[in-house]
Amino acid sequence: MKPNFSLRLRIFNLNCWGIPYLSKHRGDRMKRLGDLLNMESFDLALLEEVWSEQDFQRLRQKLLPAYPAAHYFRSGVIGSGLCVFSKHPIQEFTQHVYTLNGYPYMIHHGDWFCGKAVGLLVLHLSGLVLNAYVTHLHAEYNRQKDVYLTHRVAQAWELAQFIHHTSKKADVVLLCGDLNLHPKDLGCRLLKEWTGLHDAYHETRDFKGSEEGCTMVPENCYVSQRELEPFPFGIRIDYVLYKAVSGFYISCKTLRTTTGHDPHSGTPLSDHEALMATLCVRHSPPQHTPDPTQGPAERSRLISVLKEAWTELDLGVAQARWWATFAGYVIGLGLLLLALLCALAAGGGVREVAILLWTPSVGVLLGAGAVYLFHMQEAKGLSRARAELQHVLGRAREAQDLGLESQPALLLGQQERDGGEEQ
Amino acid sequence: MKPNFSLRLRIFNLNCWGIPYLSKHRGDRMKRLGDLLNMESFDLALLEEVWSEQDFQRLRQKLLPAYPAAHYFRSGVIGSGLCVFSKHPIQEFTQHVYTLNGYPYMIHHGDWFCGKAVGLLVLHLSGLVLNAYVTHLHAEYNRQKDVYLTHRVAQAWELAQFIHHTSKKADVVLLCGDLNLHPKDLGCRLLKEWTGLHDAYHETRDFKGSEEGCTMVPENCYVSQRELEPFPFGIRIDYVLYKAVSGFYISCKTLRTTTGHDPHSGTPLSDHEALMATLCVRHSPPQHTPDPTQGPAERSRLISVLKEAWTELDLGVAQARWWATFAGYVIGLGLLLLALLCALAAGGGVREVAILLWTPSVGVLLGAGAVYLFHMQEAKGLSRARAELQHVLGRAREAQDLGLESQPALLLGQQERDGGEEQ
Repeated sequence: MKPNFSLRLRIFNLNCWGIPYLSKHRGDRMKRLGDLLNMESFDLALLEEVWSEQDFQRLRQKLLPAYPAAHYFRSGVIGSGLCVFSKHPIQEFTQHVYTLNGYPYMIHHGDWFCGKAVGLLVLHLSGLVLNAYVTHLHAEYNRQKDVYLTHRVAQAWELAQFIHHTSKKADVVLLCGDLNLHPKDLGCRLLKEWTGLHDAYHETRDFKGSEEGCTMVPENCYVSQRELEPFPFGIRIDYVLYKAVSGFYISCKTLRTTTGHDPHSGTPLSDHEALMATLCVRHSPPQHTPDPTQGPAERSRLISVLKEAWTELDLGVAQARWWATFAGYVIGLGLLLLALLCALAAGGGVREVAILLWTPSVGVLLGAGAVYLFHMQEAKGLSRARAELQHVLGRAREAQDLGLESQPALLLGQQERDGGEEQ
Repeated sequence: MKPNFSLRLRIFNLNCWGIPYLSKHRGDRMKRLGDLLNMESFDLALLEEVWSEQDFQRLRQKLLPAYPAAHYFRSGVIGSGLCVFSKHPIQEFTQHVYTLNGYPYMIHHGDWFCGKAVGLLVLHLSGLVLNAYVTHLHAEYNRQKDVYLTHRVAQAWELAQFIHHTSKKADVVLLCGDLNLHPKDLGCRLLKEWTGLHDAYHETRDFKGSEEGCTMVPENCYVSQRELEPFPFGIRIDYVLYKAVSGFYISCKTLRTTTGHDPHSGTPLSDHEALMATLCVRHSPPQHTPDPTQGPAERSRLISVLKEAWTELDLGVAQARWWATFAGYVIGLGLLLLALLCALAAGGGVREVAILLWTPSVGVLLGAGAVYLFHMQEAKGLSRARAELQHVLGRAREAQDLGLESQPALLLGQQERDGGEEQ
């Protein structure tokens, strides 16, 4: 690779709001999305909420000349909704489905059925290895009383760990997607601090688009105005995040968002705004001056966010165990009731009532059994994330004590520790 | 690192058969396992089927002086059963839970509730990065009519992909565990061909233990003799697999197995045999002569096993879809029946019968709904593995056409391809 190597990457990201039968003007919006992608010719278009595989196939046919490589990430009952279109050949792809993703009995929210995941693409561009990730985390339905907060924090952690472990040989890491997290939310900070990813909106000097970079704005006719009431400019929950790992330097030349309207026909492409970033990758000098943000201050931020996430997960574990215990008691009571009903049915008297009550009791028993199993599994999943987090926290603290001037994301590779992992 | 660098690694692997209340002499066997591990002082002990976290905690207390680092991998409802004890500090750990792992309604087999997974540990030993993986795949209950074959092939593929994507910066890769696969089974060949891992049993010149390296032998009093009837020496389903990646050379100096008895007290440690390997890692010369097995012959083996796995997964997808469709019809009929019952109940006449039948009908409907959702999810999971496999197959074929003398496991990193991925 030449020392004056320079690569320009044009990236597109959109949560397409493509729910069959429910999302308004879906066919028309998908058609116009295809037109836009063909016209603009991005290097990589990463899409979320393409719930119908037929929509993906139609887009694929339309985009084939300009984006010869494409992939749809399948998971869960409905799908992950994630897909990508690439101008360049995709070398490898795989995916990781999040262990926790809401509750099956919250049917009206539907997230559990989707199999939310992170998709990974490996691309080789002029000798440079690019790991591009696309994801969509659990939705936030009620910010004041967010029952999914713990799951979203656990997902952010799994996402950060997946990126951390799969990008060790990548030169450039790119993450796009709908994180369903505001920039200062715990999950977002955890992800950025642990992976070292930078936010294109904060890094670019040339931003054009919605106020404060919001990706759900009140101007968008598909957005519920009531939900955005506390946020006059809207909310920023879709991101382009990136970092260069080894000997490379990456910057965001321009970042554009749509502003609630399609520039041509007037109706927006989705209820979310699209992000369009132009990134520039260059060689960094061998002895690159360390970034002043990669010092003790950043490590201390990492420790603080790890602690916060640990506390959140710990609360989640306790709550999951409470539900499992409660379901356990219901199972016990249900079994007692069944035995009583069997005795009554055998003994005559209120026989008919007993027979009538028998099946609902079995139903309650089975339901409580399912709730028990689900929350046991939830507790295990949260405990797993908590244990991983605690290990990283321990190592970060050691590094802090030793006053190492290391990049947090590299902490684990630089210090050995003698003690066993805390449980 | 010195040019004459050499590292000896002593590895222990055992499927501990630690099912609370069901496995015979569990407490005693766990105690003796602890004694053995303390006495022998391995670098790394990787255990499967430690289903009770209390067993892990007891072992941990006992092994703390000799193995200061330990981790228990939590997942599913019951757990993954996986844990590790290490003489050296564990730098990082994470895990991947397999997307498909049997059927929830096969309660008597129980695998679905376990959350079978692969655990990853990153260790830094004298400057060398070791990625150690421990896993346990879905059990095989009936070799003649194996309903879990497709799931096990999908698990083997996910395992291979997880290793492939997370070990790119590792110097040495080690995989231990109970694969529930015979050496020539599709899943085992797929795993070895795609990751490039070598089998310690085949590689070592110094093997002592059971006939043909079997890890479930008829001499073991805990093993069902009936199940082993077709295999007079037993079966080999537990493995120590390894490879060195970059500039290192790894060999297996010795491999030992237990032989159905504990050398001291006479009763075995588990229904599986333990594997004890001594590995030696050395620097390889910068221009190491290419291994003659890494040529076109190996690529052709890879292509052949990928095709075979693709066919198996394709059958699995078709079957999963058939079940989902069948459940869909049952749902339709159930809804019709419910409507009929409601009409009868309202109209009098056979009112009591209608009311009596109402709840079982709802039960059938809910059951069919669950079966539908499960198999839809199964079809998605299998399609995902099939798509990844097809992509790799396409690239391997291209490499073959170009006559590249590349290592199959590195194929993806060496060739660009212009076409889109086939769906």
